[in-house]
Amino acid sequence: MTTDTVAKESAVELPLNGGTVRMGAIAKGSGMVSPNMATMICLVTTDAAIHAEPLHALLRHAAHRSFNCISIDNDMSTSDTVLVLANGRSKNEIHPGEKDYRIFCDALTDFCQEMAKRLVRDAEGGTKCVEIFVEGAANEDGARRIARAIGNSQLCKTAFFGNDPNWGRFLCAAGYAGVDFDPTDINLWLDHVQLVRDGQVANYREEDAGAVMKQKEFRVRLSVGRGTGHAVYWASDLSYDYVRINAEYRT
Amino acid sequence: MTTDTVAKESAVELPLNGGTVRMGAIAKGSGMVSPNMATMICLVTTDAAIHAEPLHALLRHAAHRSFNCISIDNDMSTSDTVLVLANGRSKNEIHPGEKDYRIFCDALTDFCQEMAKRLVRDAEGGTKCVEIFVEGAANEDGARRIARAIGNSQLCKTAFFGNDPNWGRFLCAAGYAGVDFDPTDINLWLDHVQLVRDGQVANYREEDAGAVMKQKEFRVRLSVGRGTGHAVYWASDLSYDYVRINAEYRT
Repeated sequence: MTTDTVAKESAVELPLNGGTVRMGAIAKGSGMVSPNMATMICLVTTDAAIHAEPLHALLRHAAHRSFNCISIDNDMSTSDTVLVLANGRSKNEIHPGEKDYRIFCDALTDFCQEMAKRLVRDAEGGTKCVEIFVEGAANEDGARRIARAIGNSQLCKTAFFGNDPNWGRFLCAAGYAGVDFDPTDINLWLDHVQLVRDGQVANYREEDAGAVMKQKEFRVRLSVGRGTGHAVYWASDLSYDYVRINAEYRT
Repeated sequence: MTTDTVAKESAVELPLNGGTVRMGAIAKGSGMVSPNMATMICLVTTDAAIHAEPLHALLRHAAHRSFNCISIDNDMSTSDTVLVLANGRSKNEIHPGEKDYRIFCDALTDFCQEMAKRLVRDAEGGTKCVEIFVEGAANEDGARRIARAIGNSQLCKTAFFGNDPNWGRFLCAAGYAGVDFDPTDINLWLDHVQLVRDGQVANYREEDAGAVMKQKEFRVRLSVGRGTGHAVYWASDLSYDYVRINAEYRT
């Protein structure tokens, strides 16, 4: 049994010094599916000539910034899987420390992020995919913890569903993320509309903020003024259909 | 603005060696309320003659096992407050190490648990109060982490709402709680109905399990066979009304 509603697949060509490298991916997942955890799987293939060990390191890097940065519900699965297979057919050898390695790393990360977003766009009962960008944290990990707290929050998710520019819920989730910052340093935007400036309510029109949230995709940007750490998360909303799908799927 | 629907207050008399001690409490809270976090507050009063320092220690003990063990949504508030005031009018002096101290400690904990349950019973959109009892963990903290994972899980909360004896969701949440146990040691009950025996699906009738979940209050009991650590948590369910209250409260 699956609640996926669209095929999630992608392919890119990557021009490197040594030639062209191809990457493809297919994924499934839109929530946890009962009674067995069918959950999420993504298979990435590439014809890059790269050894297993550096490829594994790159996949960890990419997954940490993509599949580990999405929230459909707050239910981590025990059986989520991301695999990458490289057959070397491009003959383009990629070694750690070289320029192509960094380009390949960025491309793999972007590619995984795109696939992760497709999972969120197909979330059970989801009506939108919200990008949560946190900057100005002391480090990347702190930024990610704040973004995750917002992305996992039931109250933020219902605010997303209700098109409600409820900055109080976003800041509250940031506050309980366990990351140190000064509330007076907070700046918050919904796309181009600034809701909070230096810890105070900014001068904005409620209808402008509401209009941003009515879009299928928009960005919550939160700056906490501590350092240069930044991270991004993608979250679906919490809708009546999420409850219906997960409470009444047997009936 | 508040979404509380019932007054939450309680009083008890406690016979101790030195005489009778009274305890009273009032509380508010049923979810986080926008745009400011009105959230939860509980005021406990007693006429016990106890110094501030041991009283504070007892309140921490009690709150850790009551107000910190409930899940309406997964949104911890930044402004939850529990206060205890003791005016000493009973003349009954309570000192650490004495028998009355332990009795008072247990009574305060029970009292706080009762108030905490009243908050859950009045949860936003909640239709039931589920007690999650975890036993057999290596220690109390591990048991509480498992209970919390189940109580906070959107998928378990929708299963509660849908009267769905979905043992897979309960075990999955236990699995991602970050506590070590062997799946083959798992036993799971809904009240008297055993769903999982030694890691295998037990011989039970689906309608019996469903009947347990149709009650306004029931108990999920999970045994993980590692030690003597146990803990309890109380959770509301996730309903259409929760989404309505938090997504459409302005309209």
